[in-house]
Amino acid sequence: MDLAGLTSGLNTFWVLITGALVFFMQAGFALVEAGFTRSKNTTNILFKNLMDFCIGTLVFWLIGYGIMFGAGNGFFGNLELFSKTDHGAALGIPNMAFFFFQLVFAATAATIVSGAMAERTKFISYLVYSAVISTIIYPISGHWIWGGGWLAQMGMHDFAGSTVVHSVGGWLALTGAWILGPRIGKYKNGKIYAIPGHSITLGALGVFILWLGWFGFNPGSTLSLSNPELVANIFVTTNAAAAAGGIAALAITWIRYGKPGLGMSLNGVLAGLVAITAGCDTVTPGGAILIGLMAGTLVVFAVEFFDKVVKIDDPVGAISVHAINGAFGTIMVGLFAEGNGIKGLFYGGGTDLLVTQLIGVGAVAAWAIGTGLVLFLGLKHSIGLRVTKKEEENGLDYYEHGEKAYN
Amino acid sequence: MDLAGLTSGLNTFWVLITGALVFFMQAGFALVEAGFTRSKNTTNILFKNLMDFCIGTLVFWLIGYGIMFGAGNGFFGNLELFSKTDHGAALGIPNMAFFFFQLVFAATAATIVSGAMAERTKFISYLVYSAVISTIIYPISGHWIWGGGWLAQMGMHDFAGSTVVHSVGGWLALTGAWILGPRIGKYKNGKIYAIPGHSITLGALGVFILWLGWFGFNPGSTLSLSNPELVANIFVTTNAAAAAGGIAALAITWIRYGKPGLGMSLNGVLAGLVAITAGCDTVTPGGAILIGLMAGTLVVFAVEFFDKVVKIDDPVGAISVHAINGAFGTIMVGLFAEGNGIKGLFYGGGTDLLVTQLIGVGAVAAWAIGTGLVLFLGLKHSIGLRVTKKEEENGLDYYEHGEKAYN
Amino acid sequence: MDLAGLTSGLNTFWVLITGALVFFMQAGFALVEAGFTRSKNTTNILFKNLMDFCIGTLVFWLIGYGIMFGAGNGFFGNLELFSKTDHGAALGIPNMAFFFFQLVFAATAATIVSGAMAERTKFISYLVYSAVISTIIYPISGHWIWGGGWLAQMGMHDFAGSTVVHSVGGWLALTGAWILGPRIGKYKNGKIYAIPGHSITLGALGVFILWLGWFGFNPGSTLSLSNPELVANIFVTTNAAAAAGGIAALAITWIRYGKPGLGMSLNGVLAGLVAITAGCDTVTPGGAILIGLMAGTLVVFAVEFFDKVVKIDDPVGAISVHAINGAFGTIMVGLFAEGNGIKGLFYGGGTDLLVTQLIGVGAVAAWAIGTGLVLFLGLKHSIGLRVTKKEEENGLDYYEHGEKAYN
Repeated sequence: MDLAGLTSGLNTFWVLITGALVFFMQAGFALVEAGFTRSKNTTNILFKNLMDFCIGTLVFWLIGYGIMFGAGNGFFGNLELFSKTDHGAALGIPNMAFFFFQLVFAATAATIVSGAMAERTKFISYLVYSAVISTIIYPISGHWIWGGGWLAQMGMHDFAGSTVVHSVGGWLALTGAWILGPRIGKYKNGKIYAIPGHSITLGALGVFILWLGWFGFNPGSTLSLSNPELVANIFVTTNAAAAAGGIAALAITWIRYGKPGLGMSLNGVLAGLVAITAGCDTVTPGGAILIGLMAGTLVVFAVEFFDKVVKIDDPVGAISVHAINGAFGTIMVGLFAEGNGIKGLFYGGGTDLLVTQLIGVGAVAAWAIGTGLVLFLGLKHSIGLRVTKKEEENGLDYYEHGEKAYN
Repeated sequence: MDLAGLTSGLNTFWVLITGALVFFMQAGFALVEAGFTRSKNTTNILFKNLMDFCIGTLVFWLIGYGIMFGAGNGFFGNLELFSKTDHGAALGIPNMAFFFFQLVFAATAATIVSGAMAERTKFISYLVYSAVISTIIYPISGHWIWGGGWLAQMGMHDFAGSTVVHSVGGWLALTGAWILGPRIGKYKNGKIYAIPGHSITLGALGVFILWLGWFGFNPGSTLSLSNPELVANIFVTTNAAAAAGGIAALAITWIRYGKPGLGMSLNGVLAGLVAITAGCDTVTPGGAILIGLMAGTLVVFAVEFFDKVVKIDDPVGAISVHAINGAFGTIMVGLFAEGNGIKGLFYGGGTDLLVTQLIGVGAVAAWAIGTGLVLFLGLKHSIGLRVTKKEEENGLDYYEHGEKAYN
Repeated sequence: MDLAGLTSGLNTFWVLITGALVFFMQAGFALVEAGFTRSKNTTNILFKNLMDFCIGTLVFWLIGYGIMFGAGNGFFGNLELFSKTDHGAALGIPNMAFFFFQLVFAATAATIVSGAMAERTKFISYLVYSAVISTIIYPISGHWIWGGGWLAQMGMHDFAGSTVVHSVGGWLALTGAWILGPRIGKYKNGKIYAIPGHSITLGALGVFILWLGWFGFNPGSTLSLSNPELVANIFVTTNAAAAAGGIAALAITWIRYGKPGLGMSLNGVLAGLVAITAGCDTVTPGGAILIGLMAGTLVVFAVEFFDKVVKIDDPVGAISVHAINGAFGTIMVGLFAEGNGIKGLFYGGGTDLLVTQLIGVGAVAAWAIGTGLVLFLGLKHSIGLRVTKKEEENGLDYYEHGEKAYN
């Protein structure tokens, strides 16, 4: 192979293998969501996680990819059916390699929602809203930031998708969980009841798989190995923020509740990972640790806030992990960035970047919450969003699928 | 490193890492088979999955590799002990890299059988037939297609092994399950009883791992990154067929049984993956989706057919997934191929390729069923193939291993 | 990209992806340790596995890396805060790539200890000793062999860390388990009671994940793809030893106990992997099989020895797998090495190498046991090493964390 062939082969390999790691995050999400919910709903939650990827694959190929990456205008790409327009050439990789990488990201956004709405959402409605998210909602805000749209033009920096992927999924999760209402038994006679998941072993395995997958998610977003220093730095910042997030959540739960909590520390790791995703390419390892420590702290208070103050029932903490820390991490780029020509406030870059990040975070939140309201209210008043009381009490596995998870 | 060194390094890396992903499919098979069977036989089924890889490693190194890839004649390679003859040089990679990649494929074929024969096969007999498959049966038909044998000379196209790997395993599974007879309680007084597995969570995790592993199985079969377009296309066709298979099985079970079934949808994903394996390099994404939709449909009817009409008891659906869809996918190449100089019937290639594919599918089925009959009947009438009634009823874990899976 | 850029990109990719596989071994260890212990302590053991990696990440970055790889003297590197001194340049990869790869190795050593001390160690003490291991104990003996220290100067050969990683962890595990004493109910009235783990499914999945991770651990230790033959050989020797270890343990348990045991065969696979790690680059596949067969045999007798003769209670067999087989494998290099200019006794290299290996194994054992005594006795007589009787009997999950693993 000659130099051009080697370069193309190496970068294609890089993008596809890191994409495969991101694909594997589907298993991680499935396990976290299954582990953190009750065994009577396990078949259902696993099924939802499987199908959002299956459906996402078809609709993102059919329409979503073109909407996200087609030139179009600042708000919307093009209706390029079957992902046939080549968006890889400019990157020096095959169009289908770039498509595959983007597909697994789109599927990540979609799968975040199922956790917050677990244990009470109708299966058919899930399939519909999952398809809508991957077809339209995710690609449009994605176009703004990664497809050359208006936020990209303003200079917003979201390297691997704290906002593009995680916040979008998280705000949709918030909207859905709010419209859906809490699970039966969660809030009774003014009291709040914890509903423990059926297996923290599954939850822990899921988090290890997600952590592994993030070594595809963040470094793979370079889409090239032309800058090995950058790629290596991203491995280290990603890992450092995850570790710091776990430690912070350990410490905060220990102090606040008297005992160190594993479930929350697992969410602390995820919070650190979500938060570092936007700036993993521009912050130092020390900056990543600070961001991780804050994310792991923030997730504990955010979970409490939604659980006790706002009273939105989120069985797995998806809103706190993905919406809150996705937004938080994106904003932190405005403070901690110091590499790649991007300078945050702490590194003498002025407030411009910070303001841009805030605008981006706000705009995407408004977009996701707004479309989420239309989507979930539309479903609620048409085919229905929630299962019956009887079904919820006896478990979705039996009524929706006739298949118990465990025998 | 110079150009030659970089090329060799890159392609070796590619083959070995994709091979590692294929190795990981062993875990996927173990979990699917454990999850879809009862907890009293879990230690046994995990043990079988572990040992077929351990034994396969030694015998394929000792003999199998030479039989499969040695020049020999159209039917049989050479008896090259210890895999010492270099079959990698022609591919520009070390012999040991090619050997490792082929070893994990051989082990995949062997491990398919254990699922169909689960919950009633003697452990010692399993070890014997697993060794025979990896030493002789798999390498010989593999030689026909991948080792330059008579089917290769006819122009049969089985890129990554729908027939070479999956059908061979599947037809052996069919033969073994038929000779073994159904599990106690499966068919009683003219009625058919479902025997549910003990954990669909394990089954789902297994399928996610297998799907991940297939991103090694199919793209890795290029054995080189000299054609990045091809490699990227294979990622996309592989993924699309899997997704379509899952969706088809979801739809068909919903229509036929009134409820969408997760177990069958998981098998739908696997059916799509098995079916696309032969033609993943030559079909379009659209063709892959069609093949996946048909595979996901076919698997539902095939499972019903073996369960209710033929009354062969296959606890995990291995025959329908691997034999039927392996054959189906290989035949589809004769219709849907359009790339790499290969043209199927739909793309103006005439019936030649289709006829060749049909001959190949038939010959390999005859070979696997024929040798399977000799093998399983031989075992049945010598050391015995099936455990005692008491052992089966109380579980193989206790009697065969003295080790219960769960405490 | 030009030749230099491609070389750097390719090798960085190699080191980081194999490092990610080694990271995933954390999940493997967590599952093995959880599966082989009781469900009342599952949250606790998972939590320990999570936190040793989180804490290890911070302290190895802060101090450990410099102590291990700083020039310093023959015994000790440098106090290079924040891993800022570049140890990657000489290898042609970014410092942060080499750091990440070394970090996941350090974390492996630390995590070995938790298994042997499972089900009775105080959580706070675990956090402290885990930090001390990753900060000081592991980096110092690591410096001797991999950091240019006195054992490296003597010519000790421990390619991927049978001694550097596994023995150090294993000897610390031995010391800790001995000081801690056996679990309540293990030795009663002169009798020995087996305390079965709660899920061999988790144990088996963990071993498959560890096996996969070892394809990062051993081949990745080349730190370069400049010698593809070497990398491919390491895949094959690593895999062969694992398979042979599993087969040997199967055979020995069958002969000794009348039934083939899965738990022990899983440990046989791990024993083979640990033993081949030192010499994976210099032995032939045949040599690897011999080493694996001996390792799989040795682990059965070692487990019996510690359980019945020495009466040190090691719930998961970590001492036998990592300390004994780490030492054994390192010594075997002195007999079986034949490549890379290193010659073992069987290949006419004289006794020099063997003597060096023995000195290295002894010195590291003395170091780990000595520092372990100080560490664990110090903890015992300060914050305490062991939970109360009541806590142990009712389970650590409830008392230490207020979180049961299963509901």
